[in-house]
Amino acid sequence: MTSIALCTINSSARSIARLCQVSRSAHGTADFHSFVVRYSTLRKCAFLPGGKWSFIRAATRQMSQASPGRISLGRYGKGVFLAAGAAAVTGVLTAGVSHFQRAEMATKIPRIEEEEGTIRERCKSFMSLPVTDIKVLEQRKDAMSARMEMLIMETQAAFCRALEEVDGGSFMVDRWSRKEGGGGISCVMQDGKVFEKAGVNVSVVFGNLTEEAAKQMRSRGKVLKGKDGKLPFCAMGVSSVIHPKNPHIPTVHFNYRYFEIEEADGTKQWWFGGGTDLTPVYVDLEDAAHFHKTLKEACDKHHPKYYPDFKKWCDNYFYIRHRGETRGIGGIFFDDLDSPNQEEVFNFVKSCAKTVVPCYLPIVNKHLNDSFTPEEKDWQQVRRGRYVEFNLVYDRGVKFGLATPGSRIESILMSLPLTARWEYMHEPTKGTKEAKMLEVLRNPKEWI
Amino acid sequence: MTSIALCTINSSARSIARLCQVSRSAHGTADFHSFVVRYSTLRKCAFLPGGKWSFIRAATRQMSQASPGRISLGRYGKGVFLAAGAAAVTGVLTAGVSHFQRAEMATKIPRIEEEEGTIRERCKSFMSLPVTDIKVLEQRKDAMSARMEMLIMETQAAFCRALEEVDGGSFMVDRWSRKEGGGGISCVMQDGKVFEKAGVNVSVVFGNLTEEAAKQMRSRGKVLKGKDGKLPFCAMGVSSVIHPKNPHIPTVHFNYRYFEIEEADGTKQWWFGGGTDLTPVYVDLEDAAHFHKTLKEACDKHHPKYYPDFKKWCDNYFYIRHRGETRGIGGIFFDDLDSPNQEEVFNFVKSCAKTVVPCYLPIVNKHLNDSFTPEEKDWQQVRRGRYVEFNLVYDRGVKFGLATPGSRIESILMSLPLTARWEYMHEPTKGTKEAKMLEVLRNPKEWI
Repeated sequence: MTSIALCTINSSARSIARLCQVSRSAHGTADFHSFVVRYSTLRKCAFLPGGKWSFIRAATRQMSQASPGRISLGRYGKGVFLAAGAAAVTGVLTAGVSHFQRAEMATKIPRIEEEEGTIRERCKSFMSLPVTDIKVLEQRKDAMSARMEMLIMETQAAFCRALEEVDGGSFMVDRWSRKEGGGGISCVMQDGKVFEKAGVNVSVVFGNLTEEAAKQMRSRGKVLKGKDGKLPFCAMGVSSVIHPKNPHIPTVHFNYRYFEIEEADGTKQWWFGGGTDLTPVYVDLEDAAHFHKTLKEACDKHHPKYYPDFKKWCDNYFYIRHRGETRGIGGIFFDDLDSPNQEEVFNFVKSCAKTVVPCYLPIVNKHLNDSFTPEEKDWQQVRRGRYVEFNLVYDRGVKFGLATPGSRIESILMSLPLTARWEYMHEPTKGTKEAKMLEVLRNPKEWI
Repeated sequence: MTSIALCTINSSARSIARLCQVSRSAHGTADFHSFVVRYSTLRKCAFLPGGKWSFIRAATRQMSQASPGRISLGRYGKGVFLAAGAAAVTGVLTAGVSHFQRAEMATKIPRIEEEEGTIRERCKSFMSLPVTDIKVLEQRKDAMSARMEMLIMETQAAFCRALEEVDGGSFMVDRWSRKEGGGGISCVMQDGKVFEKAGVNVSVVFGNLTEEAAKQMRSRGKVLKGKDGKLPFCAMGVSSVIHPKNPHIPTVHFNYRYFEIEEADGTKQWWFGGGTDLTPVYVDLEDAAHFHKTLKEACDKHHPKYYPDFKKWCDNYFYIRHRGETRGIGGIFFDDLDSPNQEEVFNFVKSCAKTVVPCYLPIVNKHLNDSFTPEEKDWQQVRRGRYVEFNLVYDRGVKFGLATPGSRIESILMSLPLTARWEYMHEPTKGTKEAKMLEVLRNPKEWI
């Protein structure tokens, strides 16, 4: 979940606050919890349903928006590489899913509308009005905070629509605000046909951080100097955890986030973080290869070291130390990314955000009708227990959120499965597919 | 769960280690996990089953062992009070359970054999051989470490036998050692007739603590000076969490523990900690009053401020801050208790340990055949989710255990329920009995 600090805003936060000004309801001064508004019916009235496009078209489109050519690589070293052309990437993406039902995918995966048309036009496909007022987004359409808010809203909508199509159910949309500044849109589908619990959350918050809190937010622990110890900040992100019912469909998690902090001397610090990772109940080599290849493709367009570095970071981060197991089979994870420049990092994050549907939906569709035994369901429930252990004991975002007064607990704990199980001394019999899963979690491997 | 540090032992730990010398198996130098031995058949061969006595007799007996009269009250102030006589206590206890099925209780609750007969005789009723070799316990029978080990073994056996009788099932007994020093006996009954998951754990460990770890172990954070920064220690305790299937039978937790640490100058620090608390799914005023009255009686024999102080401590400790709820309806909780003197504190802990069966079993028996709806079962599962949240996010013992290399994870996480549930935005309808339960958890009250 997003590492977002929820602190008290005061007047000194205004300059940053302007960057991500929030549309306020009439309840602007009431208690935080009173802002939780059921939005499901509202959105049905306010917006036309988003269109659906083919996977191939989405992949082609995705490439045509990548920035090929010379890129300054910052701390990853300077270098020249050519991003593969659209056809090549389409080839790699389709090669990665060669055994999946391409025809099915072609009709089921929507295109992400991105930076095309007016802000107002683009907002029509969202699950809800953006957190920030549309007029403010229009006025500041070139500011990174506005561009990132549009990206996270689009990512939420594209992912939710894709899941709704495969499940047949609808997301409940909760729009919430916080009196200290900002708010969010939580989309949750619970006890659906395919998904036991699916949460896709957007939040855009601002206010003042203490120097200590600001330090905690940067993985490199950089010291930031505030005015009277306080730092105006703006933080936003999209995060999602999907727990399917069928034990042959893996759980997926992704999170893409952006931070801005203003120091006492007016310097603005910014950075991005994010990642996408897969937690299967059983090893499926084809699924794993597809998932990692799709991520690698997105990374390789920006830097050849991104995939290997962020794959390793992911394995290290999603590690349940007391069990000696990773949470799943990984993916990519990065934090505190602020080089080579804001535009390049944003483009990379955009590429990553666009992979969430093609990473996951082909796997869902492949296993949609897999039969399973009660024993397989039990093993899924035990693995869900481990998921809970990671999220409550280690996840930085969850820990930070739970410890922060005023944070929206239901959105933070949306990542927990509907059901989980803890069996004393559970150890699969040697040679079983359960034991094979554990072996992989105990010894992270290369999937491509 | 017990806050027990599991550190590496070296030669400088010997003086303390002698106090709680452990019987070692032939696998004494192998990996920690290989020590986990299924002991269930072994104990059936090695021990005769423990006897069963009546509840009234147990209550009478309990009183006759209390130390009435003048007690030096240490930090609770000096004062004189008379412990109530046996008849009075029997009266209070039976008054507290006046609506319970007394006849049933009279046959079902075993007496705790305590400090009567030889060490070897008393060991026969245990679930397993004690962690420390019987010969060592005999040689050091007057040392507090030996007396406490006997008490925790007896408490484990009495509680397990009482639960087995009501469930009809048997505890699986895992005897485990750790190469750094010490070991434990974990008794678990899973998916029984009455109990979904019942764990009763004894551990007796020793080794060296760092000064930092020693500081963390004392709730008052007292600084202890070690030789080269290391402090030989010995820690032992009994802890238990019982999750029944029927949502009308509450979950219970108790933990009684003892620590010894030797400073560089040879000074020995010691202290006790513990508590018993109840987590019902629905409010039952009679159950709550019985539970708290039984605890108050045990406390009042030792100090009039123990119950009110430790009741408050319990409410404060078992608090799920991010939910604004207590975990359950409390009980008592204390830590770092080292006054007025070792004998008095031990007697208090003994009184508490003896209440676990009379606190809980009458409640189990009362609700044994209560019918319940699927909705009630769901609410129980949601409450179980909160239990998991408390244990993984806040419980000091669990956090310390998970962070300590070499600790026995399965015994630490034995406290987690077999199954749990997280529903997004779950809020009971006003006026329902679920809402009443939440109300109590949000506003802890006095039960007697």
